[in-house]
Amino acid sequence: MKKIINDPKNVVEEMVSGLVDAYPDYVKQVPETLVVARNDDYDQVALVSGGGSGHEPSHAGFVGDGMLSAAVCGQVFTSPTPDQIYEAIKATNKGKGTLMIVKNYSGDVMNFDMAKDLAAMDDIEVDSVLVDDDIAVEDSTYTQGRRGVAGTVLVHKILGGMAREGKSVSELASYGKSLVEDIKTVGIALSGATVPEVGKPGFTLAEDEMEFGVGIHGEPGYRREKIKPSAEIAKEIIAKLKGEFNWQAGDKYGLFVNGMGATPLMELFIYYNDAKKILADEGVEITFSKVGNYMTSLEMAGASITMIKLDDERLRLLNEPVHTIAW
Amino acid sequence: MKKIINDPKNVVEEMVSGLVDAYPDYVKQVPETLVVARNDDYDQVALVSGGGSGHEPSHAGFVGDGMLSAAVCGQVFTSPTPDQIYEAIKATNKGKGTLMIVKNYSGDVMNFDMAKDLAAMDDIEVDSVLVDDDIAVEDSTYTQGRRGVAGTVLVHKILGGMAREGKSVSELASYGKSLVEDIKTVGIALSGATVPEVGKPGFTLAEDEMEFGVGIHGEPGYRREKIKPSAEIAKEIIAKLKGEFNWQAGDKYGLFVNGMGATPLMELFIYYNDAKKILADEGVEITFSKVGNYMTSLEMAGASITMIKLDDERLRLLNEPVHTIAW
Repeated sequence: MKKIINDPKNVVEEMVSGLVDAYPDYVKQVPETLVVARNDDYDQVALVSGGGSGHEPSHAGFVGDGMLSAAVCGQVFTSPTPDQIYEAIKATNKGKGTLMIVKNYSGDVMNFDMAKDLAAMDDIEVDSVLVDDDIAVEDSTYTQGRRGVAGTVLVHKILGGMAREGKSVSELASYGKSLVEDIKTVGIALSGATVPEVGKPGFTLAEDEMEFGVGIHGEPGYRREKIKPSAEIAKEIIAKLKGEFNWQAGDKYGLFVNGMGATPLMELFIYYNDAKKILADEGVEITFSKVGNYMTSLEMAGASITMIKLDDERLRLLNEPVHTIAW
Repeated sequence: MKKIINDPKNVVEEMVSGLVDAYPDYVKQVPETLVVARNDDYDQVALVSGGGSGHEPSHAGFVGDGMLSAAVCGQVFTSPTPDQIYEAIKATNKGKGTLMIVKNYSGDVMNFDMAKDLAAMDDIEVDSVLVDDDIAVEDSTYTQGRRGVAGTVLVHKILGGMAREGKSVSELASYGKSLVEDIKTVGIALSGATVPEVGKPGFTLAEDEMEFGVGIHGEPGYRREKIKPSAEIAKEIIAKLKGEFNWQAGDKYGLFVNGMGATPLMELFIYYNDAKKILADEGVEITFSKVGNYMTSLEMAGASITMIKLDDERLRLLNEPVHTIAW
C-alpha cells in the first residue's frame, strides 16, 4: 500500500483537521467529534448527512450555505456512530428541526435512526431521506435494497436549497422521497480501492478487465469483462437508466458523470460526451450537467453516470449559488 | 492500459467536446480549434493560457470571468501549435491586447512566442508571463531552467483578477514577473501516468517506492526512496521551500496542496495538515489555503506543495469570486 498518510488508524482525524484548517471560511469542526459543520450563522431546518469516509469531497465538501449544515465523518467505509450523528444534530439545531440525508447502507440506516431517537429525547424534530439511487443491483454487501451513491450529492443540493428557502422538516422529508425516486445511477470500475487499515485492495481486476455496477465501497457489480471503448460502456449504462426512467423524447434530465477517484477528468469528459450523444439521439434534453469527482471511492478508477428527472423548480435549485468547498 | 476512452488519437477532441457541452454557461469552443474560450462578453485585456492536455482541470477549467479568457488544449503532454494559440488570441481580442501565461517548457515557450509574432501582424499587442515555479530541479526533460507547474493556477487567479479590474498588458506582464518569483512548488509522485497514445506509464516505481521532485509530465525528480509517512515527506518539502523563500516568523503565505490525479482528497488533506503544522512551528502565517486536484498529470498518484508570498492585495485577488468550472 502506497499512500500519503501517517498512522492508518488516524487518517480520518487528520483529514478532518486538515480540511477545517484549510477552509475556515466554510467549515469548522464540532469539538471532540468528527463532525464538520457550517462556520456561519443561519436560521433554517438543519441538514445533516455523512457516512463512512473515503468518498471525499462527500460529504464535508458540501457543508455550507445552501447545502448541508453538517457532515458526520465515519471511519473509512464505516458508518459513523449514533453519538457522532447526535452531536451533529445538536450542534446544528436552530430550533426548526433536522433533516438527515442517509445513503442506504444497513449500518448508516441503523445509526442515523438511533441518533434520531437520541435527539427525540431533546425534543428536536428529526426526519430523514434515504437515498438509494444505484440501480446496478438489488441488495448488496452492506445493503438491503439498492445502494446510495453519487445521486446523494444532487439530493444535498436540491434539499439544501429548499431548506434555505424555509421549508419545514416534514416538507423536506416528503419532497425528498419523491426526489430520490427520480434519481438513478450506475457505476463502473477499472480498479479497486485500498482502505488504509486493511492495506490491500478490496477487489482486483485483471489488466484488461472492468466491472459494471460496482458500488462505492467496491461492492460487486453485475458483470466483469474486458475493457470496452467509452462509447460502448456509455451505451450499456444509458440503456440501463432508460429501463428505469422510460423517458420519452422531449423529457428533461440532468446528467452527472462522477469520477470514483483515480480516473482523470479527461476520461470523465469523454465519457460524458458519449453519454450525451446517446441521449441526444433519444431526444432527451439535458438541461443540467455536472462532471467531476464528487462521490469517490478512495483511489478506485472508474466512474458513475447519474440521471435526474428535472422540472423548472429542480433546475432552479441545482443552479442556485452555494457556499461550499466542493459543489 | 485501461482508460475510459475511445480512439487514443481523439482523446483531446472528445474531451473538449464534452467539456463545452457540459458547461455552456461558462465556456465555448472556438470553431475548428481546440481552444476553449469564455462564453460571455467582457471588455478587458484578454488572458490566454494553455499547454499540453492531461493536466485537467488546467487550463480550461479556469476559463471564465475573473480568470482566463481562453485555454489552448494541446495534445496530451504536447505543446499546442502556434496557429491554435493564435486562434485563441484572435478569438478573445477586445482591442486591449493579450497577456499569455506560459508554463516554462521549451515547446510551449517557442510556440507561444510564434503566436505572438503572428498576432503582431494583426497589430494585436501581446506580452507573456513565464511560470517556472517548480524548484525541484534546474533544467529538465523538456525545459531550460525550472518547470512551470501547479503555481500557474495561482498566476491565472491573481492576474485574472487584475485584468478584470482594468490593468494593461504591460502592467500585467510586469507585475506577473514579480509574482512568479514569489511562487514556488515541489512535487512528489507515487506512480506514473500513461499517455493514451503511448499506452504504458512514462515511468514506474516499485510497490514501496516514491520519487521526490517529479514533474507534471513524469520528468525525473531528485531522489527515489521508500515511501515515508506524510509528515516526513512534508518536512522535507517544506525545508526545500524554506531554502528558497528564507521566510521569517510572522511572514504571510498561501499554502496550496495540489493532487496529481489519482491521489484521494483524504491524502491531500492529511498532507496539507502536516505541512501546515510545520509552517505553524516556523511562525509562518498561512492566510490562504487551497487543497485539491487543479494541475494534474493524468492518473499519476502524488501531490505538490505550492507556497506563495502574500500581501493584502494578492490575498484579496485570490479571494475574489470568479465564474469558472474548477477554481
